[in-house]
Amino acid sequence: MNNEFTEREARVRESFSRQGFMRYLGARITAFAPGECEIQVSYRDEMTQQHGYFHAGVAAAIADSACGYAAYGLMPATSSVLTVEYKINLVAPAAGDILIARARVVRSGKTLKICAADVFAVKDGKETLCATTLSTIMAMQDRSDMAAKS
Amino acid sequence: MNNEFTEREARVRESFSRQGFMRYLGARITAFAPGECEIQVSYRDEMTQQHGYFHAGVAAAIADSACGYAAYGLMPATSSVLTVEYKINLVAPAAGDILIARARVVRSGKTLKICAADVFAVKDGKETLCATTLSTIMAMQDRSDMAAKS
Amino acid sequence: MNNEFTEREARVRESFSRQGFMRYLGARITAFAPGECEIQVSYRDEMTQQHGYFHAGVAAAIADSACGYAAYGLMPATSSVLTVEYKINLVAPAAGDILIARARVVRSGKTLKICAADVFAVKDGKETLCATTLSTIMAMQDRSDMAAKS
Amino acid sequence: MNNEFTEREARVRESFSRQGFMRYLGARITAFAPGECEIQVSYRDEMTQQHGYFHAGVAAAIADSACGYAAYGLMPATSSVLTVEYKINLVAPAAGDILIARARVVRSGKTLKICAADVFAVKDGKETLCATTLSTIMAMQDRSDMAAKS
Repeated sequence: MNNEFTEREARVRESFSRQGFMRYLGARITAFAPGECEIQVSYRDEMTQQHGYFHAGVAAAIADSACGYAAYGLMPATSSVLTVEYKINLVAPAAGDILIARARVVRSGKTLKICAADVFAVKDGKETLCATTLSTIMAMQDRSDMAAKS
Repeated sequence: MNNEFTEREARVRESFSRQGFMRYLGARITAFAPGECEIQVSYRDEMTQQHGYFHAGVAAAIADSACGYAAYGLMPATSSVLTVEYKINLVAPAAGDILIARARVVRSGKTLKICAADVFAVKDGKETLCATTLSTIMAMQDRSDMAAKS
Repeated sequence: MNNEFTEREARVRESFSRQGFMRYLGARITAFAPGECEIQVSYRDEMTQQHGYFHAGVAAAIADSACGYAAYGLMPATSSVLTVEYKINLVAPAAGDILIARARVVRSGKTLKICAADVFAVKDGKETLCATTLSTIMAMQDRSDMAAKS
Repeated sequence: MNNEFTEREARVRESFSRQGFMRYLGARITAFAPGECEIQVSYRDEMTQQHGYFHAGVAAAIADSACGYAAYGLMPATSSVLTVEYKINLVAPAAGDILIARARVVRSGKTLKICAADVFAVKDGKETLCATTLSTIMAMQDRSDMAAKS
């Protein structure tokens, strides 16, 4: 692991730690590399939709954050990261103890990064795909992510 | 307000009350009619992204629930409601004290309902559009929403 | 109609005339204002899917071009226009003699314009909504649309 | 190659041959297996956007048809196929002699199939990813694709 990698991961984790919503969900970054990010959240009643599965909003939120930080890991330290849009398909009930979002950058332009994430529910150690997303992430140049804090 | 309307609203509110995640967000249904639903959530640190605005995940979650219940209000009592997919564009920072998602059914087929929602941030009494969504909601026939609870 | 409006419409129509694909479809701009654009195409066997309706590809193509030119009408003459992404919901069979895409800019940022379009099939003078789209259009600064031609 | 495979491919190719729009584009199915489909189209002036590249509408149309037929290959002969919606990200200029859409079914439910397609432009024998899509395809039960023709 070289210094540049270390700087990028530190920057991503510092930004993530400022997301009050991720903390409220109990979400944590469980894997990171520039262009890749994995976020997990554990099951509790506070995470559910009306049938007792993980709420689609939880799956979407961790997939979105994972895409944002996968992309941010490819941006210069002088920029901040912004989700322009995403689409999510919910392909199976999110039934399990843990929800895992794995994101990767599909195409890295200077201003825009196109990312994809898969979300898996883990039950009895078995992963089931429950959602898949495709998203557009923007690099705001010359405005560091910390400075952007209101 | 006729009996059928009352039955539909009661059914929507009962289903909403079973969403642990909506309760955890402090979200509430502030307006309802068959084919329309409005959901609000108040600002707190637990709702934020890294710059202190509402997290996109909060906007997406209440927009998704609002679309689902707008659609569910047009479904028979014997069916349950499921989000197939949605797309969200985040068009401005969600800066404000309250976030409002207003959803409407654009096209109501028997199995699929196509819905759209706009999300507004309210600051000093002024609404600003911060997100817009387009979604596909499915009616699961012959499986009431309550019975579907795991 | 003032001079600036005239310049914008002329620029949009000139760019549209360079789209070989739109010409091949027989598509024409039937209404324009900065931030708004309408494109129509007539029915023929060459426009069909396997059941004899307009192919979704035709609806998507004219909706995309209409969104692009609605957005381009709000950009400076020194920029060129690019579709980043769009989503389309096909809500009814596109059965009719004419297909009309009506696009509008929902939110106009400097770099990105968020647009929506509705597509209607006209049969016996009656319009039916058959598709709706939500899209992200980008302004490429300091690179005029004509100069961008390869 | 067994009989069932042969029947499915024949059914897909027969349906494709009824799409007047695909024929007009000069599109052809270049690879097929149940759950997978590849469609190609060659460059000509009639396929272009204003800068001389393949029009996004061409990329979207062949990606959509490829997804539809990838899904249809997993449906019973008594059903017909319908695109509910898709999202496309255009990630690079589609510059080349040939455009190739490769689609696969990501998740196959009874009523809905979730599909993804990548579109590549081939120039001097080298493939470049120019678009990626995520789509929802529906099986219309008890209504064969041929009978559905109007």
